[in-house]
Amino acid sequence: MPDDMTIPVGDGFDQMARDAVYRAMFTRRDVRSYFTSEAVDDEALARLLLAAHHAPSVGFMQPWNFIVIRGTARREQVRDLFLAAREQELPAIEEERRALYRKLKLEGICESALNICITCDRRRSQGSPLGRWHNPEMDLYSTVCAVQNFWLAARAEGVGVGWVSIIEARALKDLLSIPEHVTPVAYLCVGRVSEFAPKPDLETHGWGRRLPLPELIMSETFCGQGEVPLKSTIARLKVATCEKSGKPLI
Amino acid sequence: MPDDMTIPVGDGFDQMARDAVYRAMFTRRDVRSYFTSEAVDDEALARLLLAAHHAPSVGFMQPWNFIVIRGTARREQVRDLFLAAREQELPAIEEERRALYRKLKLEGICESALNICITCDRRRSQGSPLGRWHNPEMDLYSTVCAVQNFWLAARAEGVGVGWVSIIEARALKDLLSIPEHVTPVAYLCVGRVSEFAPKPDLETHGWGRRLPLPELIMSETFCGQGEVPLKSTIARLKVATCEKSGKPLI
Repeated sequence: MPDDMTIPVGDGFDQMARDAVYRAMFTRRDVRSYFTSEAVDDEALARLLLAAHHAPSVGFMQPWNFIVIRGTARREQVRDLFLAAREQELPAIEEERRALYRKLKLEGICESALNICITCDRRRSQGSPLGRWHNPEMDLYSTVCAVQNFWLAARAEGVGVGWVSIIEARALKDLLSIPEHVTPVAYLCVGRVSEFAPKPDLETHGWGRRLPLPELIMSETFCGQGEVPLKSTIARLKVATCEKSGKPLI
Repeated sequence: MPDDMTIPVGDGFDQMARDAVYRAMFTRRDVRSYFTSEAVDDEALARLLLAAHHAPSVGFMQPWNFIVIRGTARREQVRDLFLAAREQELPAIEEERRALYRKLKLEGICESALNICITCDRRRSQGSPLGRWHNPEMDLYSTVCAVQNFWLAARAEGVGVGWVSIIEARALKDLLSIPEHVTPVAYLCVGRVSEFAPKPDLETHGWGRRLPLPELIMSETFCGQGEVPLKSTIARLKVATCEKSGKPLI
């Protein structure tokens, strides 16, 4: 997209405001390194939690809870769960990638300022499960929307967030006394960081590459060809990879 | 929060940029009404899809596809699926709420400019399912993050998005020729709108209310008391309910 392109103003978001939203998205990172020893003050953390709490939720059920974990001993126990889970996962990884897998930094549980476990109470809308009769997993999806709001708000605050998915849910539930009907959706490492990497770590280390978006777009049905003008438009857009360029992001 | 509160600058987001991010979150709505007949141009749609494509994904697998549905006949078929699903869901709703449920506007499938079905290819990282050995649903969660990015970007562009969850997944897969190993995660109505409602529709119609966030925060474990200063800070913050106030949102 040419740098001089202007986006028409709609409902009060001027171009600077829109760029800010895109910037949070395009420069958000799943942070595992770069955590500093600086605290995350309650003012900032409160804003992040409010952002999460304003996620969409099916039937307005707001199924989330937020467990704030600061204690060192408990975090070491969670890190041990991660280490055990990583060893269990290793055989599932293609053999030629195992050496790389072992080298990857996949969590910052103890190095970050605090951890947050975002959970989903599967029973909160019991009685009137609007939108969940056919798709009971919609409450989990709502909770993920809260996670993503938290993550993007954190990026705008200069706070790094890393989602640890290599962990055994049953063991985590026991450790955090999470009741049976509550599902831990995301275990997050949260802290001030010295920098945000210009690219995802897994891209930098050669684990994967960003897929070409036009190839992921279908028209009318899953195998449908079409949407040629849309795909051409996407191919023209340039997403800035450097957050410090100060230029429009797309 | 007092209007004169300033947020310390971190990693390049000044207060205006941060406010823009929060504004997208706090004024985002699940839109079912207010769709206008105006088209969503390919430039805007391309930006929304790029935003979605820059969501986090477990193992950088990027499991999503985007089916763009514009055809009237197919959309009428999807709307029929919704109508059938709504009748099936009705008995699951508490009896005293059924009249309200019937009155609620729960989709804008045909009135919106276009529909997008965001799907998750469960096999895309086959061979090296980093982060999915213990939690195989992580790819679905990644796809939900893409949905939320799309939604927030749309808000910043003045585009309304409504997530239709009252639909039978099996029937939707058949209608859109979605292969067995691909899960439809979100069926979205997308279009320009005349306005964004100041509150969620379900709140306005008395279906539910916004829960008090401090009550959803736990300390160290699920039932853990504590985090009193954080909860007090949250209670002090005021989220603007009117998007047109022009004042800081929190």
